[in-house]
Amino acid sequence: MLAFTGSRLDRADHIRADPDRLAGMMNWKARLLALDGLMPGTDDAGCLAWGTLADAPEDAEFVFLGLDVSEEGQGKPCFAVVPPAGDAAPRMANPQLWSLMATMRPDDLALYGGARSIVDWHARHRFCAQCGGGTKIAKGGWQRECTSCGASHFPRTDPVTIMLVEHDGRLMLGRGKGWPEGRFSALAGFVEPGESIEEAVMREVLEESGVRARDVTYIASQPWPFPSQLMIGCHSHADDDALTIDETEMAEINWYVRDEVEAALSGDGPFVAPPPHAIAHHLMKWWIEK
Amino acid sequence: MLAFTGSRLDRADHIRADPDRLAGMMNWKARLLALDGLMPGTDDAGCLAWGTLADAPEDAEFVFLGLDVSEEGQGKPCFAVVPPAGDAAPRMANPQLWSLMATMRPDDLALYGGARSIVDWHARHRFCAQCGGGTKIAKGGWQRECTSCGASHFPRTDPVTIMLVEHDGRLMLGRGKGWPEGRFSALAGFVEPGESIEEAVMREVLEESGVRARDVTYIASQPWPFPSQLMIGCHSHADDDALTIDETEMAEINWYVRDEVEAALSGDGPFVAPPPHAIAHHLMKWWIEK
Repeated sequence: MLAFTGSRLDRADHIRADPDRLAGMMNWKARLLALDGLMPGTDDAGCLAWGTLADAPEDAEFVFLGLDVSEEGQGKPCFAVVPPAGDAAPRMANPQLWSLMATMRPDDLALYGGARSIVDWHARHRFCAQCGGGTKIAKGGWQRECTSCGASHFPRTDPVTIMLVEHDGRLMLGRGKGWPEGRFSALAGFVEPGESIEEAVMREVLEESGVRARDVTYIASQPWPFPSQLMIGCHSHADDDALTIDETEMAEINWYVRDEVEAALSGDGPFVAPPPHAIAHHLMKWWIEK
Repeated sequence: MLAFTGSRLDRADHIRADPDRLAGMMNWKARLLALDGLMPGTDDAGCLAWGTLADAPEDAEFVFLGLDVSEEGQGKPCFAVVPPAGDAAPRMANPQLWSLMATMRPDDLALYGGARSIVDWHARHRFCAQCGGGTKIAKGGWQRECTSCGASHFPRTDPVTIMLVEHDGRLMLGRGKGWPEGRFSALAGFVEPGESIEEAVMREVLEESGVRARDVTYIASQPWPFPSQLMIGCHSHADDDALTIDETEMAEINWYVRDEVEAALSGDGPFVAPPPHAIAHHLMKWWIEK
């Protein structure tokens, strides 16, 4: 299973839009996700830690995450609180979080990832982009409304294409600028307004490597909560392997044969492969097995 | 070909980030897309109308759309100007635009759609969501920067799943609340933070119809510039056809056999099918032909 998927929460959209039902959910059975800023709290068993709504500060903005429909969750309503401050430059997971994530249960990881993205979005969107006025949380945390001009704002999810490019049995992998020596992954880039997934894949590959990709096919998708991407994994072919590397983005790009990619995925290859949490790991495995 | 794809512009990302090269593009050869607010101007032949940069107001914010690499375009740099005011509640195309779009050349439509999404984003994001300060255009119009806290803001593209659900040779189609009588299309909904494309499809179908979809596969994608969606077209199967309709979103949901869908697509069926510009039209055709 892909990381950050398989949450045990039912998002219960019908409750968000109904103030009475939502208020009814904020009862003594409700659980509050333990967060220190954006970092998850864990219990002795290494599972996500939970408290009650009484643990929240008095002026807290609550996000209704959904109902825990797992057997142990018994349908309990789950909430999270928006952190006091957002980060103007959202960043990747820190090393402490990476090691936590490596041991988290998959459904905990999915629940945490979704909660992180949404509370972080609120923390970074306290003002209205349309008029600069203040905004307040609405619809159980799935919207913000401007108190000045009335504009509605919705949580943001940024589609990113990440792609395998294959030529003559070899796979194109790159090392981004600033990445550690030896670390290679699939090329990736944001889908821009006015392009399809397939067009975004071809543009990104051409921009970063100078190679023309064709026959783009979709493989899999995965949410990525740093801060809120939708990773869209694709495969494509190239007729030519001559590289013209975009040095503003990429440190190196190489072509690797199947054995090399397989060895890297098992931790003993000519490069360091992306960790299992990253969809690139999954895409590379898919390529080995196909 | 899917509508709004196949633009003849090379987005020339390397120019955006280089102020000198960007300034060099703002020359007498540069073309300015004629826009009246967000409406396109057209020439006598029904093609997109263009002017020169001199046509822009003195305080104009310019977006560098890219280089027109078609034969007639001769590599000319193309720009658009951000409209003076954004709309707090972005809306669909009006009837005048729908009829214009029906006769536009596909590459003009793609170019216009992409330009519309990006200039509209600027018009609606003149303030910083992080601190409420003013923002200014940056990187040739592919970024805004807060003049107060320094936060960077990027154009938004919202991934939306739109899905065929099939059961026993019949297709689930719905009429949204407020739609004209008789008009049916595929169900659709925004991908939320913390879910994959496949999870979003299953959630939306369950929410709106009460039906559990399985075996989700990707079919095609298309940008949709009202205001800036990435439509992600999928197919899925259902084991059951019993409907529990979400009456806050949907007026009707029905199951249609192949002949009915085919008749509707040719304009003479039991319901009014979506127009060729909509990816739903393409998905329904794909289903008929598969």
